[in-house]
Amino acid sequence: MSKLVSSLKEAIIAAGLKDHMTISFHHHLRNGDYVLNMVLAKAAEMGIRDLNVNASSLFDVHEPVIGHIKNQVVTGLEVNYMGQKVGRAISEGILEKPVIFRSHGGRAGDMENGSAKVDIAFIAAPCADNMGNMSGKYGPSACGSLGYAFSDAMYADKVVVITDYLVPYPLQDCSIPEGYVDYVVCVDKIGDASRIVSGTTRITRDPVGLRIAWLASQVVKHSGYLKDGFSFQTGAGGASLAVAKYVEEMMEKEKITGSFCMGGITGYLVSMMEKGYFETILDVQCFDLSAVASIRENKRHREISASRYASPAAKSSAVDSLDVVILGATQADTDFHVNVHTDSNGNIMGGSGGHSDTAQGAKLSIVAAPLIRARLPLIADKVLCRSTPGETIDVIVTQRGIAVNPRNQELRETLVRAGLPVKDIQELKKIAEDMAGVPKEVACKGRTVAKVLYRDGTLLDTIQAKS
Amino acid sequence: MSKLVSSLKEAIIAAGLKDHMTISFHHHLRNGDYVLNMVLAKAAEMGIRDLNVNASSLFDVHEPVIGHIKNQVVTGLEVNYMGQKVGRAISEGILEKPVIFRSHGGRAGDMENGSAKVDIAFIAAPCADNMGNMSGKYGPSACGSLGYAFSDAMYADKVVVITDYLVPYPLQDCSIPEGYVDYVVCVDKIGDASRIVSGTTRITRDPVGLRIAWLASQVVKHSGYLKDGFSFQTGAGGASLAVAKYVEEMMEKEKITGSFCMGGITGYLVSMMEKGYFETILDVQCFDLSAVASIRENKRHREISASRYASPAAKSSAVDSLDVVILGATQADTDFHVNVHTDSNGNIMGGSGGHSDTAQGAKLSIVAAPLIRARLPLIADKVLCRSTPGETIDVIVTQRGIAVNPRNQELRETLVRAGLPVKDIQELKKIAEDMAGVPKEVACKGRTVAKVLYRDGTLLDTIQAKS
Repeated sequence: MSKLVSSLKEAIIAAGLKDHMTISFHHHLRNGDYVLNMVLAKAAEMGIRDLNVNASSLFDVHEPVIGHIKNQVVTGLEVNYMGQKVGRAISEGILEKPVIFRSHGGRAGDMENGSAKVDIAFIAAPCADNMGNMSGKYGPSACGSLGYAFSDAMYADKVVVITDYLVPYPLQDCSIPEGYVDYVVCVDKIGDASRIVSGTTRITRDPVGLRIAWLASQVVKHSGYLKDGFSFQTGAGGASLAVAKYVEEMMEKEKITGSFCMGGITGYLVSMMEKGYFETILDVQCFDLSAVASIRENKRHREISASRYASPAAKSSAVDSLDVVILGATQADTDFHVNVHTDSNGNIMGGSGGHSDTAQGAKLSIVAAPLIRARLPLIADKVLCRSTPGETIDVIVTQRGIAVNPRNQELRETLVRAGLPVKDIQELKKIAEDMAGVPKEVACKGRTVAKVLYRDGTLLDTIQAKS
Repeated sequence: MSKLVSSLKEAIIAAGLKDHMTISFHHHLRNGDYVLNMVLAKAAEMGIRDLNVNASSLFDVHEPVIGHIKNQVVTGLEVNYMGQKVGRAISEGILEKPVIFRSHGGRAGDMENGSAKVDIAFIAAPCADNMGNMSGKYGPSACGSLGYAFSDAMYADKVVVITDYLVPYPLQDCSIPEGYVDYVVCVDKIGDASRIVSGTTRITRDPVGLRIAWLASQVVKHSGYLKDGFSFQTGAGGASLAVAKYVEEMMEKEKITGSFCMGGITGYLVSMMEKGYFETILDVQCFDLSAVASIRENKRHREISASRYASPAAKSSAVDSLDVVILGATQADTDFHVNVHTDSNGNIMGGSGGHSDTAQGAKLSIVAAPLIRARLPLIADKVLCRSTPGETIDVIVTQRGIAVNPRNQELRETLVRAGLPVKDIQELKKIAEDMAGVPKEVACKGRTVAKVLYRDGTLLDTIQAKS
């Protein structure tokens, strides 16, 4: 018995792909992924139409999906994140049916509770055996954690594993076991390794970014959470890493040992664990090669599924035990609602990822962002898209001041006492407008091109076409 | 947020235990388990009645269940294995409703497909954190693999984790994650470590046992499966270990490297892996302390769930890739059906465990057993209980000869050519009867006290009361 089939086409036929089905993909191969394009091209060639694609994220490499939408091969999209290229096309209205946006935890949760049904999951696996045991840790296209793919494997009717590194049965260090897998197909390459992960991720040198990071670290310091057992999530961007650096310096000085860190894992967090600042990394996604090496070799660096990371359908997830998260924003508003789906012109160029999951779960959620970006103020009266509800955001940190959500008066007073530049959110808005001018209202009044679901599946907001 | 409750009683109340519910337990603490007795005693004290208990196995330590049956606290039992003490009471008819016997794979499968519904799983966890991440590898009551508990955690409505070793969040090397857990309770002791696992398991010195083991190893040798990539399961008994020893000697001589071994894992199999005879151990259950140490420390020794081991509801499981399994029997018959549920007098004293799972999955299934036991012949016209269907048994090896299932004529000829003492099953039966006499028919004509389900959930046989 073996589940190996000789070609992708054979796997597609065996799995029974038909018009109108929902197929799913994970995004651990990021901007180096070949698999989504490969499957859609083959489906198109086979004359299949009207597919609903549930991809945990779409990057610029997935630009061919635009052609498939135009040709009616793809008529539905569900994603947690969408890069600029596909995002702009969606904002222009190429897809009739609104895109469904979820959070990373929400996607897992909606698969668990049955509201996001997948007919066939196509799982890019950097390493697999002939029965479908798979891992992301080994092989020429190693991406580390396969965290987002667990739900696809567990809840899709049929599961096709696509690998370029077939190992003898049984794959020892298997992430997702064979019991969920129907077919395995071995192809030449599942991705471009140089684009799967960046070689290094660097701390910003931009003085504005450093100022924001330093202020954010001061909020962490005075919040009361920075003590033994501290848990922390920060992003992989240069400013987020600068926060990590400042936090590390404080932990060193105060001799604090944290419990775990999470999020998109980079070499910087790996080195913090290795130096003993954190006991454990819980890794739903690796962002660079150091993280991939570490999850393969260091027992303290553990792979977790999206469900274990943040599913609201699980009885608990790691975000429920998280102390502090550092988040980004393209826009925020005076009610502390945050937009990470569109730019300030209303073009789709992002998505929640784990934003709303961690904001709700963490004890302290800090948005750190420049007050002005591309000559537009960060803070508006109303965000163009409500990605994360304001009631789950505690603090907005900019280079010109820190706004504390009025729901958290105690924290506000603590930060004022610490001498930090605490300002009212309206005041921050005014500073930005004094610098950059009041932006003219963005006309996003076309039909609905996307629906943004909150992590619990309820509708948070809609995104309108740019017309 | 924490799921810790202060006492077992509080956990029982929080989980909503009521009359008529089904509760479940795993048996990794074996004859040292305190948890099943602890929960039933508390339920009895709280006045709860009419419970259906789904325990993966019951050992002699669980004798108090007899009292709970008499008091109507327990009115239903579902098990994969039942030790002699409870078995005899069941055979005497103390429980009105027939016991449901399943295999290890069948139990997992029936939970997966919904035909075995559990209201509350009580999971003994040698190590856990306050959110319910758990492991069997650490703590004073370490038992190694928690393989059988995965299905309980994943499919029960409510899950209560009972531990005596609470660690800081997050438990790094977690087997079953928090997403399945509702409550955690910390008690003084979950088991008697000295009875959880035996210190050592020794190869038999009995000449009859050694003869049987040697013959079984010769069947393996000539079957054609003993080559690079060989996979193997054998039991933990002294004769099974002797088979492992003879197999090891052949692998050494022929320079063969196997792929994986499975089953109840002992130090003997661990040492075979360490010496390089097997790449990997897939471990659903540890049988001794060497195995517990190895699964904790050696990356090549991997924990697998009962589903991954043998579930017929999974898309595949490890038994489907198994080459050779060595099995026991209390009785066999001329159709090669095997009884492992009752002794030759019809008293319940065992159960399938993984017997029928591996017999069906493995390419070659060998029953190795003495031709006469307690003055009774191994081979009857009809087994008292059909535990494993004859069509899944390839060979029966006794000290006086080897019977090959007529379905496998090619193997029979190979073994004859190899000069092994191949005999017709009727001939073996006659040899036994010539030695021990024809046994008088056992009177098991009372009402049905147990139903034996095959791994796919169909009824294989029933067991009658001894009256």
